[in-house]
Amino acid sequence: MWLIGARGSVATTTVVGCATVAAGLCPPTGLVTETEPFAAAGLPALSSLVFGGHDTADWPLPKRAEALAEQGVLPHRFVRAAHRELAAADREIRAGGPSAGDTRTDEELTAAFTADIEDFTRRTGVARTVVVNVASTEPAPAEGAARLPASSLYAAAALRAGCAYVNFTPSTGIRHPALAEAARTAGVPYTGRDGKTGQTLLRAVLAPMFRQRALDVRAWSGTNLLGGGDGAALADAAAAAAKNAGKNRVLEDSLGALPEGEVHIDDVPALGEWKTAWDHVAFEGFLGSRMVLQTIWQGCDSALAAPLVLDLARLAARAHEAGITESLPELGFYFKDPDGGSSALSEQYAALLRFAARLAEAR
Amino acid sequence: MWLIGARGSVATTTVVGCATVAAGLCPPTGLVTETEPFAAAGLPALSSLVFGGHDTADWPLPKRAEALAEQGVLPHRFVRAAHRELAAADREIRAGGPSAGDTRTDEELTAAFTADIEDFTRRTGVARTVVVNVASTEPAPAEGAARLPASSLYAAAALRAGCAYVNFTPSTGIRHPALAEAARTAGVPYTGRDGKTGQTLLRAVLAPMFRQRALDVRAWSGTNLLGGGDGAALADAAAAAAKNAGKNRVLEDSLGALPEGEVHIDDVPALGEWKTAWDHVAFEGFLGSRMVLQTIWQGCDSALAAPLVLDLARLAARAHEAGITESLPELGFYFKDPDGGSSALSEQYAALLRFAARLAEAR
Amino acid sequence: MWLIGARGSVATTTVVGCATVAAGLCPPTGLVTETEPFAAAGLPALSSLVFGGHDTADWPLPKRAEALAEQGVLPHRFVRAAHRELAAADREIRAGGPSAGDTRTDEELTAAFTADIEDFTRRTGVARTVVVNVASTEPAPAEGAARLPASSLYAAAALRAGCAYVNFTPSTGIRHPALAEAARTAGVPYTGRDGKTGQTLLRAVLAPMFRQRALDVRAWSGTNLLGGGDGAALADAAAAAAKNAGKNRVLEDSLGALPEGEVHIDDVPALGEWKTAWDHVAFEGFLGSRMVLQTIWQGCDSALAAPLVLDLARLAARAHEAGITESLPELGFYFKDPDGGSSALSEQYAALLRFAARLAEAR
Amino acid sequence: MWLIGARGSVATTTVVGCATVAAGLCPPTGLVTETEPFAAAGLPALSSLVFGGHDTADWPLPKRAEALAEQGVLPHRFVRAAHRELAAADREIRAGGPSAGDTRTDEELTAAFTADIEDFTRRTGVARTVVVNVASTEPAPAEGAARLPASSLYAAAALRAGCAYVNFTPSTGIRHPALAEAARTAGVPYTGRDGKTGQTLLRAVLAPMFRQRALDVRAWSGTNLLGGGDGAALADAAAAAAKNAGKNRVLEDSLGALPEGEVHIDDVPALGEWKTAWDHVAFEGFLGSRMVLQTIWQGCDSALAAPLVLDLARLAARAHEAGITESLPELGFYFKDPDGGSSALSEQYAALLRFAARLAEAR
Repeated sequence: MWLIGARGSVATTTVVGCATVAAGLCPPTGLVTETEPFAAAGLPALSSLVFGGHDTADWPLPKRAEALAEQGVLPHRFVRAAHRELAAADREIRAGGPSAGDTRTDEELTAAFTADIEDFTRRTGVARTVVVNVASTEPAPAEGAARLPASSLYAAAALRAGCAYVNFTPSTGIRHPALAEAARTAGVPYTGRDGKTGQTLLRAVLAPMFRQRALDVRAWSGTNLLGGGDGAALADAAAAAAKNAGKNRVLEDSLGALPEGEVHIDDVPALGEWKTAWDHVAFEGFLGSRMVLQTIWQGCDSALAAPLVLDLARLAARAHEAGITESLPELGFYFKDPDGGSSALSEQYAALLRFAARLAEAR
Repeated sequence: MWLIGARGSVATTTVVGCATVAAGLCPPTGLVTETEPFAAAGLPALSSLVFGGHDTADWPLPKRAEALAEQGVLPHRFVRAAHRELAAADREIRAGGPSAGDTRTDEELTAAFTADIEDFTRRTGVARTVVVNVASTEPAPAEGAARLPASSLYAAAALRAGCAYVNFTPSTGIRHPALAEAARTAGVPYTGRDGKTGQTLLRAVLAPMFRQRALDVRAWSGTNLLGGGDGAALADAAAAAAKNAGKNRVLEDSLGALPEGEVHIDDVPALGEWKTAWDHVAFEGFLGSRMVLQTIWQGCDSALAAPLVLDLARLAARAHEAGITESLPELGFYFKDPDGGSSALSEQYAALLRFAARLAEAR
Repeated sequence: MWLIGARGSVATTTVVGCATVAAGLCPPTGLVTETEPFAAAGLPALSSLVFGGHDTADWPLPKRAEALAEQGVLPHRFVRAAHRELAAADREIRAGGPSAGDTRTDEELTAAFTADIEDFTRRTGVARTVVVNVASTEPAPAEGAARLPASSLYAAAALRAGCAYVNFTPSTGIRHPALAEAARTAGVPYTGRDGKTGQTLLRAVLAPMFRQRALDVRAWSGTNLLGGGDGAALADAAAAAAKNAGKNRVLEDSLGALPEGEVHIDDVPALGEWKTAWDHVAFEGFLGSRMVLQTIWQGCDSALAAPLVLDLARLAARAHEAGITESLPELGFYFKDPDGGSSALSEQYAALLRFAARLAEAR
Repeated sequence: MWLIGARGSVATTTVVGCATVAAGLCPPTGLVTETEPFAAAGLPALSSLVFGGHDTADWPLPKRAEALAEQGVLPHRFVRAAHRELAAADREIRAGGPSAGDTRTDEELTAAFTADIEDFTRRTGVARTVVVNVASTEPAPAEGAARLPASSLYAAAALRAGCAYVNFTPSTGIRHPALAEAARTAGVPYTGRDGKTGQTLLRAVLAPMFRQRALDVRAWSGTNLLGGGDGAALADAAAAAAKNAGKNRVLEDSLGALPEGEVHIDDVPALGEWKTAWDHVAFEGFLGSRMVLQTIWQGCDSALAAPLVLDLARLAARAHEAGITESLPELGFYFKDPDGGSSALSEQYAALLRFAARLAEAR
């Protein structure tokens, strides 16, 4: 796995979690690919995964893990147990970009990133590398911008290096029009975008419920409070707009039309890695009766994201091995803004199980 | 439709709603059978339905409807618009039983109920009658009780009168062992039990979500506050136990095991027909991280139940016409404690759509 | 009472409620001035109040009341019972301003408003008139604006007509620097601003609790959902900023410093007159333990505001009679952004009781 | 401090917290006696406190602290920092009773407890000892029981040893009629009962708000979910009844009458030391409008209790020194079921400040 944002809390949790679960120190809670329906799919073993990546920050990964333990996000004993893997991953992290004052062109940056990835693959001797974007959300690119956003430069590098690509963030990544041709011809699977870890996960089961029961959703309002790096990144209005597009999609698809209501994303540093999402659904029932459903979701963002990142990397690696060379709408289960398919979680889960069966047959 | 509990708030709302929607005065919100997938199923038109039933109370149905309007449960204008239908239904309600001091035997009661239903069918000239139990929940019958519970006497009368039977309550009804043989040989469809209108509806979509995401639900606790007749009936601990059995079933089936946690049902007369259900789900994610989901559902019980009652009566009538003569696990979408099948709402909805298609083919 | 915004839902509810309570048709719930400590304060009787006012809308007040009854905000029977009073108030409403295309100067508008008020006082023969602003919130005035905001023109007219003045909204009103001298010399009592009806009422008891228990509030976040006229007015970011200033004041005063966290005000037309306020308070306890309090307040805005409007008008009228000719920080109990005094509700209530005692002695 | 229940999580947190705050390793959050109004009251310094107590369990206190750190209740670094104090306290813990099969009479038990306390005072050389009950809640004693409940035996021992006494639990303690005479003549201050740490703390500020605003509370319902030892103890219905009596008192006192509604206390072991309290308040406003307030309180029980325990011990010790020899209704701020005085938190806080001033003058 080559992680864009390799020193962030999601990446750190991914490395610690992979080591801990592989060593049998804790059960694989949250890892869908460790459940029974995936047993025969030929996925790479957790113990076989090797980590590296790009990041613009330079704090050491073991330090980052200890800081997460101090905040109560990771148990101290798991951080201690994963020390070797953290140090190994740390050695495989290269400087990302562009950093402030960076004068390199898009082509120069892409070439540098490609070289880093190819070097990692060669030196570690892995069968193949999957590039996964878990960096902070970048602002939606201005229309007609001359430069590619950083997330698309990394995606271009993944394609050029012949690697499967997963975009776990709402950033543009491989969806930039300038990458369409390369994506079509690179001969790798790719998928995204924007991991579905909390409020949108709930919406993906609740919105179909309202539709199936013929209830009339009048307004769906939501507020997200989160700290950590993502809170700050999303406080930026443009970044929130990028994220909200995904959130709205599930409602519009499931309900047939977008109801009234706004979604707020507030940066609350005091919450650290913990996020709280409140949803308020005003709906009408029989004879116009007015009713309300409210949900409050309190979770740890990196702990919600990390097992999905491991799932996606394993599925993408196996799809690559099985010769699949296009986008993967079958992985819509994991994303707010998937490559296609239904927005209802139950149908997305059924599609995922069919995909697992297809991988099993491809052995 | 022959309603057991014909003067209750669910029955009253059913009569008002059928008239109002049939007259085009309000949209069919909440009526699943009025959505597109049911258009070809050959269901009886709302305008063709005729109402009667049993009740032990004797307040006039139009008065009951006005009282519900005063409480804000039904709009005044709909009660006025349905005045003729309310008066007509009122004339077709017969005294239920057994009342206090009633010395009739089970056989005498069953015979009297059967005669009432047959008389209704004959005089009104309807093609067939569906008996629907919407009476207050009765206590769970004591083990080895000599007498049948009232709900089972009504069910026996339905079978004897050759009518399809629906049990919308948690009471025993047709599930009493003493009725098994009659149910098998009566040549009618029957289904139940315990309409899924609020907290359990939510659980039927949320519990599968946790399982699909491999999250570990540690405790699922809930409190229901409700007034109206049902609040008082369910305050009785035995009645609550009957209801909770259904609530637990969805968790046990969906999660594989019943998690910690209790369910409380409180009678709060000040809430009238409105009910509030709070659920608190403590779950563990990746690396044992502790997270919480809470839901608050605020709805009007009779407005939630009435459209489902109309759906069920239409589906049961059509099944009867189509020659189906057994229990209907395909209607598990509507029940907390269904005749069989999955506990996940999405799968129940798929089964319902297949049933609609089967009815369409049977034309 | 001369109501600015006399055709709005707060004014309509005030007129219906005054008539209904005065006639003994419903208990004086929500009217603080009808509780025992105010019995001897010499307040004008509810039955003695006469209503008029300014509004830029022109729908008839009885129609407005019926619309509120259709929405379930007012009981139909109370609207019918107050028909005479509604019609009487309707006849005493004059066109407000400035309307679109109005070419009158500030002085011309003030003079016209003053004449309307004086004419009302003379014709109705009331002992004195209290002017109360219950109009929709206006945007915060741009710095250095040449014209006075409308709310300040009405306040100037109240002073010129020798009337007590109450500002129930977050608009500028009498607090405009241009009115300072007139307020000082007009010989009338005046008070404001921004009625404390929901989220801020809660904060005024909860924030002192955290301080008294030495708990460390790290972040206080809130979202308000409301429809009605106010929802639309407050959707305007500048108007929300005006309102939020009041909301922040109570936190800053009670906690010693403003914690992290934002307040959102969303216009959700589907909610009509009903508003929902969610608050999320992240606080630290002993040894840095992280805890959370959440509150959800669901109320009817006009029903919350109207009794406070009646309270304030009666208190201001009596203060005027008693010769008080300055601002009234003693009424901080009613306001988000009071004229002075503590922000803690318990201390504000104590101050209000002392004020009632002072009025009693002034008889 | 002599703690009854000295090996429990509250006692453990008290010892760790006293050491950590005294050493300046963390701020005194939650310690009311460390705020400015108490600076001159002559309270004993945190660094001067010495700990011992009774317990029927025998796990070592340092182990217990480590277990709490593993559960995320106490930070590891504070447990490490307090290691010396934990070991010292552990050495001063004596076996409580009666244990299963204990044949000692009430008098023999009281004498043994008294000797333990006197021995502690003598050997440690402290100026005086305060006995604080933080043991698990015991069932409400059966009427006419021949034996004293254990909590009352410990209270009798405190009186006999000439120690101030604080009951932080809902158990009977010093309120047993058989102890009335001893309490009157022992020449020590004593106070209780049932620490106000969560739901009741909120009720003590919210109930007065409703009354001050003349709003009509129709129903106040609540559910508490908690694990730890207290969850199990309170699962016992009789113990819950003892606790709920305190919870009801604040509503009855503040609202003038007890509204509808029940309080549930559920044992949810999965929550560990964390407790969640949901309250649902149905109230009527102007013209009978129906509104709802809901609160959700999520806190760590031992972290909420421990600073109050330190506060109470310091205040009781100083009161003893100042010659106060009766019950202390001035400490109602800390209790669900205080010795007297108002149930409103703001008035209780004012009384506490007056008490601090009285102690300051008594120097």
